[in-house]
Amino acid sequence: MNNFQKVSVEEGARVELHDLLALTGAEISINTLPAGASVPFVHSHRQNEEIYAILDGEGTAEIDGETVAFKAGDWIRIAPSAKRRFFASYKAALKYVCIQVKVNSLENYTMTDAVV
Amino acid sequence: MNNFQKVSVEEGARVELHDLLALTGAEISINTLPAGASVPFVHSHRQNEEIYAILDGEGTAEIDGETVAFKAGDWIRIAPSAKRRFFASYKAALKYVCIQVKVNSLENYTMTDAVV
Repeated sequence: MNNFQKVSVEEGARVELHDLLALTGAEISINTLPAGASVPFVHSHRQNEEIYAILDGEGTAEIDGETVAFKAGDWIRIAPSAKRRFFASYKAALKYVCIQVKVNSLENYTMTDAVV
Repeated sequence: MNNFQKVSVEEGARVELHDLLALTGAEISINTLPAGASVPFVHSHRQNEEIYAILDGEGTAEIDGETVAFKAGDWIRIAPSAKRRFFASYKAALKYVCIQVKVNSLENYTMTDAVV
């Protein structure tokens, strides 16, 4: 396997990066929900922590029954067991990145993992 | 611990999300390099795969001696052992996200990890 992979993502495309980039420690998807659309089914995860980055637009999440508003620039971590669903606002499309990683898998990072 | 955490990141700020979001499976940093600036020291990682998302601007990476051009919309995976450094172009500031995850840590994802 190469020591690196690169992919160019077109504006507005839905892309799952795991296979494209040969990721081994995360799945990352780039998503767009049209204005007023939602991911309406409540779901949780077996072992993955999810991290959402809101790139554009705004909306709300329901997390364990609590309503959480979000907008571009917000980052949200959701624990595996939390029950969640998502709604784009009626004003504009919602563009976001979802990062899935195994909970408690990170051991070292930045200066404790780097070799200069 | 709460089942979720949220943080709002201001435009242009450098932010490390691990502690802010109580992440357990990743470190994520949001970074800006001024036009013409670089992260000039060559480094590799002990066990972390790095994933770079280019949000704005363009530049080049040197990865194991190979020069790789990148621009907004590009995503790059770099294996732990790869020796790397980064340069913003002289045209504009480079805004990017760096995601660190432990190599080979992801076991299931999306439909195999979700509970509906």
